[in-house]
Formats: sequence, C-alpha cells, structure tokens
Amino acid sequence: MSENTYTIGDYLLDRLAELGLTEMFGVPGDFNLHFLDHVVDHDTIRWVGSANELNAGYSADGYGRIRGIGAFLTTYGVGELSAINALAGSYAESVPVVQIVGAPPKETQASGRKIHHSLGDGDFKHFLRMAQEVTCAHADLDAATATWEIDRVLREVVFRRKPGYLMLAHDVAQVPAYRPSALLQTDLPVTTPGAEEAFEDALRRFLPGRRTAVLADLLVHRLGAADRLNSFLKSAELPFATLAWGKTLVDESDENFVGIYAGAASQQHVREAIEGAEALITLGVEYTDNTTAGFSMDLQPANLVEISRFEARVAGEVFTPISLEAALEVIDRVVAELRSADGGQAVVPMPASEAPAAQLPGEPGEGPLGQNALWEILATQLESANIVAADQGTSYFGMATHRFPAKSTFIGQPMWGSIGYTLPAILGAGLADRSRRPVLLIGDGSAQLTIQELGVFVREKLPAVVVLVNNDGYTVERAIHGPDQPYNDIAPWRWELAPQFFGAGEEDYIYRRAATEAELLQACRDAMAHREKLVFIEAVTGRDDIPQLLQDVADALKK
Amino acid sequence: MSENTYTIGDYLLDRLAELGLTEMFGVPGDFNLHFLDHVVDHDTIRWVGSANELNAGYSADGYGRIRGIGAFLTTYGVGELSAINALAGSYAESVPVVQIVGAPPKETQASGRKIHHSLGDGDFKHFLRMAQEVTCAHADLDAATATWEIDRVLREVVFRRKPGYLMLAHDVAQVPAYRPSALLQTDLPVTTPGAEEAFEDALRRFLPGRRTAVLADLLVHRLGAADRLNSFLKSAELPFATLAWGKTLVDESDENFVGIYAGAASQQHVREAIEGAEALITLGVEYTDNTTAGFSMDLQPANLVEISRFEARVAGEVFTPISLEAALEVIDRVVAELRSADGGQAVVPMPASEAPAAQLPGEPGEGPLGQNALWEILATQLESANIVAADQGTSYFGMATHRFPAKSTFIGQPMWGSIGYTLPAILGAGLADRSRRPVLLIGDGSAQLTIQELGVFVREKLPAVVVLVNNDGYTVERAIHGPDQPYNDIAPWRWELAPQFFGAGEEDYIYRRAATEAELLQACRDAMAHREKLVFIEAVTGRDDIPQLLQDVADALKK
Repeated sequence: MSENTYTIGDYLLDRLAELGLTEMFGVPGDFNLHFLDHVVDHDTIRWVGSANELNAGYSADGYGRIRGIGAFLTTYGVGELSAINALAGSYAESVPVVQIVGAPPKETQASGRKIHHSLGDGDFKHFLRMAQEVTCAHADLDAATATWEIDRVLREVVFRRKPGYLMLAHDVAQVPAYRPSALLQTDLPVTTPGAEEAFEDALRRFLPGRRTAVLADLLVHRLGAADRLNSFLKSAELPFATLAWGKTLVDESDENFVGIYAGAASQQHVREAIEGAEALITLGVEYTDNTTAGFSMDLQPANLVEISRFEARVAGEVFTPISLEAALEVIDRVVAELRSADGGQAVVPMPASEAPAAQLPGEPGEGPLGQNALWEILATQLESANIVAADQGTSYFGMATHRFPAKSTFIGQPMWGSIGYTLPAILGAGLADRSRRPVLLIGDGSAQLTIQELGVFVREKLPAVVVLVNNDGYTVERAIHGPDQPYNDIAPWRWELAPQFFGAGEEDYIYRRAATEAELLQACRDAMAHREKLVFIEAVTGRDDIPQLLQDVADALKK
Repeated sequence: MSENTYTIGDYLLDRLAELGLTEMFGVPGDFNLHFLDHVVDHDTIRWVGSANELNAGYSADGYGRIRGIGAFLTTYGVGELSAINALAGSYAESVPVVQIVGAPPKETQASGRKIHHSLGDGDFKHFLRMAQEVTCAHADLDAATATWEIDRVLREVVFRRKPGYLMLAHDVAQVPAYRPSALLQTDLPVTTPGAEEAFEDALRRFLPGRRTAVLADLLVHRLGAADRLNSFLKSAELPFATLAWGKTLVDESDENFVGIYAGAASQQHVREAIEGAEALITLGVEYTDNTTAGFSMDLQPANLVEISRFEARVAGEVFTPISLEAALEVIDRVVAELRSADGGQAVVPMPASEAPAAQLPGEPGEGPLGQNALWEILATQLESANIVAADQGTSYFGMATHRFPAKSTFIGQPMWGSIGYTLPAILGAGLADRSRRPVLLIGDGSAQLTIQELGVFVREKLPAVVVLVNNDGYTVERAIHGPDQPYNDIAPWRWELAPQFFGAGEEDYIYRRAATEAELLQACRDAMAHREKLVFIEAVTGRDDIPQLLQDVADALKK
C-alpha cells in the first residue's frame, strides 16, 4: 500500500472535518502513532497535543460547545481511561464529542497475550464496555464495516448531542477506503404533523388571558435553537429567565430579561416572575439539584407549557413526537397571532419587578478584596465577544447571577461538576473561535487538578485572561461541610510563577496580583490593554468568603 | 446519633488499619466530606490530600507496592472516573489497592433525579459497572450488609493482589456499627497435599544431571515470597535472573545473579544462561510483550519447571492446586537433598559466562550527557535503601539492565505502561516507608501528565531525588515511530522553576542542571549531601538519544 493510499483513518478525519472540526486534541501513544501521521497530514484538521488525556477530553468538550463537534485521540487503556471522566462529563452536559482510541492490531488482540496497556487477561473489550456506559454510541471498528460504523456513531453523536467512542485498531486505521460519496445526514426528522397541530390547538386555548413568562435552559443551545429562541423573545416581549445551566443562551442585556432562576435560591424578583406566571413556557429546561437549590422550584403543572426535546406539554397534556424547534415555531406563531388579534390583550406579560439596582462598584476600595466585589467588578469588565468559563466552585456561583453582555458565552458544568474542568475547556473553546477572547475564572483548588494545560495556552499563543482565585483551598467544600478540616486545605503554590514555569517568555504574558478592589480593577484594565497576551490575575480573597448564591444553595443542600 | 457513634465508615477504616494502612490518599468532594471527618479523626490513618484523583490512585498504588495495601478516596462520578486508569493499572500490575467512593445518599439515588456528578439519567450504577471491569471485587455498600461486604472485598483484594472498589453512600457511612470482633482472614488455603507430593516426585526425577538455572518475576514479590526465594537462591548456588517486571526481587549484587532476561533483547550472557538451561525453574513468571521484546523467548517446555500462583508444572505435566510458596519450599528441599546426596553432583548449575565488565564511568566527561552515561552514573550512585521509580520511557529501559544494590526497590509499570504514573507513585512509596529515600527517574513528556503532585512532595517534606530527563518530548515514542513528527513534541517548560512554583522554600530544595557527565555526578553528590531536602536534577540529553534496551525492544516490536 503506498504512503498516499486513502485509508479508513482518512475517512474518519474527512467526516469530522465535514462536521466542522479543524482541531483535534490528544496524546500520542504507540497504538495511535501511524494514525497520527494521517492527522498531521490532513488538509484541514490540525493536531493540538495535550499535556494529558483528561485535559485533552476537557479541551474537546469546550471546543465542542462552541463548534458543535469536538474530538480527541488517545491510546488504548492508559490513555482512554485517563480521559473517561471528560467523556462522562460530555454526556451529562450534552456535548457532542468523539473519542478515538488507537488500539492494538486485531491479530494481537486475538492472540489473547499479555500486551502492554491491557489488563493482561486476554480480554481487549474491557474499556469498550466502560465507554459504553458514558456514550450514546460506540464501535470497535473492523475493516469490513468501518466506514458504515463511523457514519453511524458520528450521526448519533451529532443528533443526540452526546459523546461517542471509536476504537480504531492500529491495523484497521491503515486499511484502504474510499472517500465519502455524500454528506452525512445528521438531522433526523422528529415531528409528526398531527402532534404539532394538536399542540397548537391546545396552546390557543391555554394562553389567552394568562400572565405569561418564559424560562429557557441549556438544551435550547445544544439543539442549535438559540437564534430561533432569541428572535421569539425579541418579538414576544414577555419576561424571560434562564437557569444557570443555560446562562448566556438569551440576551441578558435585554430589558425583558429577568435574571437567573434557581428555585428557592433565586433573587426574589426572579422567583416572583417565574413562579407567579399563570402560563410559564419552559423551553429545554432540565432541573438539576445544583441549578435549583435542591429541586426547590415552586411550579404548578397546571400553569406550564413545557417544551423538551421530543415532546410538548400543555398543563400536563402531552403532544409527541414534536421537536423543540417545531414547538418553538408554533409558540412564536400563536403568541404573535394572539397579540395582533386582540390589540395585544390576549397575551399578558407576567409583570416583573425591577431587579434590585446592581451594586455597581463605585470608587473601588483599598480594603481586602471580597467575593461579592470580585465578581461584580469582573462582570462589569466583560465584553460581548468573551467566552467565559467559570469553574464549579465560588467562580461559578459568583458569576452565575451577574448579567453578561449580549453575545458573550458562559461555560459552566453545573450538572457534572468536575473541578478543574474549565482550564482545559476554555483552551478548547478559545481555539474553536480565535476571534473571541477567552476568560477563565477558577479557584486555586480546582486549578491544581489540571494546571499543566497552561503550557498549551502558551504554546498556542492563546491570549486568555486567567483569574485565579487564591483563597487557600476548597472553599466551595468548606461552605458545605468542614470549614476548618484539613481535608479542605491544599498544597500552597506560588502562582506568580505559573506563566514562566509553563514556558511563557517575559514578553508573552502579564501577571497581576489583586488583593484589593482597586488592584483588581487595574488588573482588568491592564488585561484590556494587552489583548495579544496571556494575562494571569491572582485574585486573593478570604478563605471562607463565599458568594451569596453559593451560601443559598449550600443551605438548601444541607436540608 | 452522637458524634462519637462508631459507624460503618469507622469499621472500614479499622479494617484498613488492621491490614497495615496508615495513609489514605484522595480528593474531597461533597459526597465524602462526612466520611472524611472520620478519616481525619482516626487514630492511625492519616489523610494525605492529593492534587487530583488520578494522582491519588497512582500514589495509593505506589504505597500498596511497599505496604501490601493501599487506599484512596474520591467523590462519586467525577472523582472516581478521573482515577479509574490508576485502578486499572493496579489490576494489570497486581497491586492491592482499595478505591472508596463517597456516593449520594441512597434515598437521593432512589429518586432518580438529576443529581450533580451523575449522568442525569437516573441510573446511579454506571460507574460501579465500569469499576467492575478493572477490579477483582466491588460492592455498593448498604446498611444491612456493609461490614460483611467490606470484609469480603478487602479479603479478595489482599488474597488476589488486585484492586477493589467500595461505593460508600453518604448516609450508609454514618450508620452505627460494631467494631470487628476478629482479625480478617486473608490467607486462604490453596495447596492440596497430594498435588504437592506428586510435584515433589516429578521434580526428583527431573532435576538430576540437568544444567539448572532460575528465572523469577514480579508475582513472587506480590505473593510475599521474596524472602523465601532469596533464602533458596543463597543456598542453591544456581545462576538466576529476573525479568524487568521483577527487578530488585532478588539480590542483584549476588555473584550468581546473571542479569535481566528480556527474550531476544537480553544481553548475550543472560540469554545463554536462561535459554541454555536444561532445567529452568521459573517462579511467578508472566511473559509480557514489553518485558520479552515481543514474546521473543526461546524456551523449550520440556526443560521447564514452571511455578505460578496455583500450579506447578514439570516439563509440561501439571500439578494443582499448589501455591507458589509451597512449590518453592518443595524445590528448596529437593535441591538441598540432591546436593547433599551426591556430593553436589546431582545439581548442576548452568554455567553462566561473566557479564561484560560494566562500563563504569571513569573520569566523567565534559561533553554532552548521553543516555548510556546518564543511567550508568545514576546506577553507581544508588544506595541499598533507595526506592527507585522509573517511568515507562527511556528511564525504565535505561535503568532496567543496571545492577541495583541489595535491598533496594525498583518500581516500574511495564505491563500497564501509563506515562506519568511514577511521579505520584514514588510519593506514595516514599510515604509508605519514610526510612528509605525515594528516587524518581522520569522524562519531561511523562512528567507533564502528573506534575502537580510535586506540591504534595513539598507539603509532606519528602526528601526525594527527582531526575527529570529533559529531552524535548516523547523520546520513547520517537523510537517507535515518527521521530520528527510534531505529535511527539511537547510544550517546553522551565523546569528549574518547578520546586519553587510548587511551594518549596529556598531552604527546602536544591536544583541542579546536568548537561554533562561531570555535572550529573556532581549533582548526585550534592543530592547525597542534602539528605533532608527535595533534590531536583534536570538532566539534559539529546532528543533522539535512547538506551540500548529500548532500541532492541523497539526493533522487536516493529517486527
């Protein structure tokens, strides 16, 4: 076979490129090196070597959230299992990511011998079965069916917005193949016209005269219906909110945006607008313990129009199958018609009180920096182009309730909640869209889990703003239990050395320590003045100081 | 229930302490915080917080290799999956380690709701099933059977020398229990007297007049039979070797030690002594691709006395069940009797040629440091008390063939081969025996995967000697494929900053850069002169320079 033979490996790469992939993350290993030759030779896909496999998986997840597809490559056993937590996170958070695993040649597997990176018991399917638990589709590719199986797994990944797994044996990757002859169809039909019509009838009977509000969540983003939703919200002029999981799905600068709904931990005016609505249209909402302060919603099924992925419900009556996008179009049409039919009287926006005036920082203080001031100041400094990742600690809870600029993107992981995730994830997100500056908000405890990926920020010349909250340990855990227990302490590091240690030259970065509000504000301004550089801000806050939302959620979870 | 109530969690801790555990590694999470209160309150077990979960698992593995039992604690989902590669490694390498997972309360699991750290599909057994693939025993503890199940899993772990998994729900850990009433019996009987007698008869017929040698491997160490083996070797005066997996199992300074057997990649005199023997007694030998240069052994079954865990074979005839220890006693007795019965003539040691004179470094050179000189110099500097971990790259292959001092310990991972493993593993090994100085040999590519654990070296004041081989990427992969491919490059770091960045004060460490033989020798001497400090030696070698054994193995694997 000539060096230029088109192989099964090339077919896989072409399909990924067709889906929009231009970067692949991962770590080389002896069972994927030959396939890697094809990766580095590919016309549009670029190899981004990661410092370790878990970080590769996290980067692919962050990339997939922005691009709609992410992929990473590991070696068999040692590599794939190191990354499997990332794969599970992509499942829990509905991110379309493909893990490709370079495996021993089929003949070697069949020998049943003690091959390195296996358990030594002759069973080469252990890790495939493990991946099966955390993916929507998986395949152990073989020569005869590989291209068909690649198509099947990729279609499922994109359609379901869940991760997939491909085991690509060393020899199978090299088998000659033919280029795809047609585009991969990933958008499978869902809606039945009868269900759609019945839903529309029900909606027309239900909505008139009811005080109406809208609550949306993450799934709308994942299903690619965010633009559709925002166009509806612009014309409907109804008050709307999201859960924290869906943060930045809607335009938070819109006058009808009420805030973030979090059950009993919501700000009072948000709770009133959502729970007081007589018609609450929920779109792609999935209630999780962390986003609802322990399922503390007070919502009456009789008041709900609930749109999920495959069904619509009106006051409990189910209409299915109907896609979220189709249901949204019905709602948009019905609301518009009701509005024009009756001089607008048939649609009654739920009256929403004004949000309490934001405590905009006035003159920044010279006293110690507190958590509340930290997040308020950072929120005022964000720009619409920013992609902001907040790790699942004080960063997430501190930032969730602040209004973000229109068209900015918030990345969190409230469902899976794997600390350290955001550091490699914001790298992936930043590489997925080089036109937007990435901002990372992370605590010292979380950053220790995945810090080595900072070397890839440097190598990739990613001009990220990293805000490292140095508060001496796992403060989010202290809020839940054991504030003074030694298990919530961490090894103290000298964060000011981080950029240099990870390879940044003097001209490549700026470091600022911010222990007061004034220092933080100045650090943010310096970050704006150095748009081409990596900016590392060490924000120092008190060990037990936490944002209000975290306090409220921790209280609810303790109950 | 009073704060002092004895709980199921305490029972587990007491059983682990009974087995010899005094340190538990791990990362806190909200589902294990209450159990952690009991860990930090325990009389003999101490909590060692890890920087991340994979590293915790690796540390527990290193600890378990020295102590005979290791344990680590993670939270549900995110924590346990991050560590599952370490658990699989413990399986492949036969290390008794227990992973304890703090899980959501049983009632919360039963609700089937979207709880953080779960996949959100209401199935809380996904991760238990995944752990099942890489453990010898596992349990989802419940109140009624918890103590019985804890005993079952721990017994299996110790007896089988494989990892186990305990899912400990938040509420189950708090249930009152009673202290163990008797010691846990872990040493289950194996041997049947009839099998033992038949084996002895066969051996008496087989051995006389045959030129005899001994080949031992890792399993002898794992089964706790190393002392028994060494006593036999002292009296038998037969030439002996080990595979690299069993390195330091035997006294490598003994005059009858031939060297490391590695199939076709063996040094010539080792190959002759082992493959030329007419009676080769193999003890606990498990041939793997990496330790035999791709199963390139040339051994005739008719010449073998093969002792494995549960059976003995003489020229292919099987005697079972018989434990390795019992078989070893039979061999010792028969060899001693044959020797005394016939003036020693009935036992014929296989003549072994002298090993080629070690290329002891003479005057260290001032030219660039090469891989061969690197490992030779390091080998001459080792002391009998050292525990040496060599990562599965040039470090492992470079060190495997050098003679180690008696009573030193070598830690490698040739079967599982997870790069980065040794850094947290040597931390665990060092804490398992504070009386012995740990030495870490690791390449720059591997160290990047797990570097954050260096902060725990500093916090624990572990006076390790770290030799970081800076050769600009994954040299072990370059030897296999793609020497100039970009996927074998890594992000370049400034290693000289590592100790400081990870928190070492000026007085706590010394750093040395060694780019010549003379500099390396001086750095080693400085390390000896600072026995109480962390010593970080950055050894700089050529990008493509590799030790001979790696070249031989890579050549064999390419075939």
